[in-house]
Amino acid sequence: MRIILCGFGVVAQSLVKLFDSRSEDLYAKYGLKPRVVGVFDSKGSAVDVSGLSLSKLVETKKKFGTVKNYANTKNSMSGIEMLKNVEADVLIETTASNYKDAEPGMTHITTAMKKGMHVISVNKGPLALAFPSLMELATYNQVMFKFSGTVGGGTPILDYAKNSLRGERITSFAGILNGTTNYILTNMSTGLSFESALKDAQDKGYVEADESLDLDGLDAAAKLVILANWIMGMKVTLPDIDCTGIRKVTIEDIKKAEKNNSVLKLIASCDNKLVVSPKEIHKDDPLGVNGTLNAIAFTSEHSGTQTIIGKGAGGTETASSILRDLLDIRQEIAKN
Amino acid sequence: MRIILCGFGVVAQSLVKLFDSRSEDLYAKYGLKPRVVGVFDSKGSAVDVSGLSLSKLVETKKKFGTVKNYANTKNSMSGIEMLKNVEADVLIETTASNYKDAEPGMTHITTAMKKGMHVISVNKGPLALAFPSLMELATYNQVMFKFSGTVGGGTPILDYAKNSLRGERITSFAGILNGTTNYILTNMSTGLSFESALKDAQDKGYVEADESLDLDGLDAAAKLVILANWIMGMKVTLPDIDCTGIRKVTIEDIKKAEKNNSVLKLIASCDNKLVVSPKEIHKDDPLGVNGTLNAIAFTSEHSGTQTIIGKGAGGTETASSILRDLLDIRQEIAKN
Repeated sequence: MRIILCGFGVVAQSLVKLFDSRSEDLYAKYGLKPRVVGVFDSKGSAVDVSGLSLSKLVETKKKFGTVKNYANTKNSMSGIEMLKNVEADVLIETTASNYKDAEPGMTHITTAMKKGMHVISVNKGPLALAFPSLMELATYNQVMFKFSGTVGGGTPILDYAKNSLRGERITSFAGILNGTTNYILTNMSTGLSFESALKDAQDKGYVEADESLDLDGLDAAAKLVILANWIMGMKVTLPDIDCTGIRKVTIEDIKKAEKNNSVLKLIASCDNKLVVSPKEIHKDDPLGVNGTLNAIAFTSEHSGTQTIIGKGAGGTETASSILRDLLDIRQEIAKN
Repeated sequence: MRIILCGFGVVAQSLVKLFDSRSEDLYAKYGLKPRVVGVFDSKGSAVDVSGLSLSKLVETKKKFGTVKNYANTKNSMSGIEMLKNVEADVLIETTASNYKDAEPGMTHITTAMKKGMHVISVNKGPLALAFPSLMELATYNQVMFKFSGTVGGGTPILDYAKNSLRGERITSFAGILNGTTNYILTNMSTGLSFESALKDAQDKGYVEADESLDLDGLDAAAKLVILANWIMGMKVTLPDIDCTGIRKVTIEDIKKAEKNNSVLKLIASCDNKLVVSPKEIHKDDPLGVNGTLNAIAFTSEHSGTQTIIGKGAGGTETASSILRDLLDIRQEIAKN
């Protein structure tokens, strides 16, 4: 399967390492033979239609900070040129989420779809701003559009709700969808001030370059958009979310929650309304997990409330979700 | 789809109510039109090849304690006679689990398979004692064998591990698979003695008629057998489990756990060895849920540890898992 990788950060590098370490197993078990024919990052690109060397890609990126130096050529294609000119089956989009105009991810995705490529995105920007129209574009161009890694990292939350609960009717859900704010709130509950807890999270590398994505709830809201569209069949985008972050949470709020035998968490919920907001969760509720964990509770008509808990981020974890999407695409293609 | 129901207790009654209340939706969305052509319980049976009235079945059972009085006939077929003589597509086996010889469930299942019927079982006995050979028998007779409801009730634990984590390699798992013992241990942690906690659980109807199934860990061990076979590809049966129940747990054990900032739970685990035993779980571990909840944590190679929590029992919940199995069978049949 011919793949174009767009973005070559932690997630994409974890993915190619996964390809490398599991190549035999993936072929034997699933008939998947991933061939990376092109990679581009913000500084340049590398192309080889017969397949790039995965280890050389990682080495090049490590040494030069870009894949551009993979070959000894002065000029390299732009991402858009690559998508338009290099034949591939799947685009894997891993550039950073941007909730203003969703670029450059949006153009990558739409260009690839129009060229008849299947698309896997772990970039939440395009989905948050244009989920309904991207799904239409995919249908119109008869390509598959997968995004397992956008919610829950390696924890298959979207798949669980859509597939494992098939035949059920999910009536509402609520979750901790952002590990960074959970980490900050967990530390505040041990007495740290917001500022100290934020500093600690930053030192550990948990906070996005644009801290607003975490602190103002944008990341959680983007995931809520994806869940609402995919699981509940709603047609909504980011502006439809009533979103409050954690900047105004005080030690007093945390103490008040404790008095109620509860913990304060940033909760994204879908129950008639779509809301992201700090909320008290009772200590007996499985949803109230600590540290950087993510958790989501689905309430369904017949089988009660079910909670899934897991790491919401991480390079290898997110790469494993991309691999799942790829296996799905492989299987669908094999059917036809 | 022609269905024979074997056993007509809480689960089977919840199932026919589900058929009734969702008949339009099931047909429109999934093309499923369940037609119950035969039902038998321990006292007798009811048959109508054109389809039994679901509401009349429930009424009859309520009034007479058996479905035998559905029609005004003196004699009714035995279960085995029905399986041998009434044409049907699927047997749904819901009689009580028995870990001595797995009867009568075992004979129902093998008879149905040999007649070419697909089988859905929520009876754990036959699976605990003969999982590997039942799978072989199903393969040999080219029928589907489904058992989602045996582990986790309505919480799709088996499906999650098998399907949502496809492409992953699960390396170990551990879980609270029996809600009754969890309820007893939770109450003991508030100071109740084992005897009082057991009495309370019995009063609430949580304890099996044969209390040993819960207290000696047999129910948890049976579920562990199913998980080990289905998820890990092991070929094991009940005697392979190293099983200790909760009868010897003392208030001192519970207090000791508390000192270690932990809670004492009956844990079924697969990590080289297959063990059911009381074990301390750290308070920060999402696995340590309270009350009658079930929880299981799967650790996989790339996506870390993921915990699923939900109600492990209940008529409607388990019926919803049977419905999922039925939809799977419907979909598979439609493919051919």
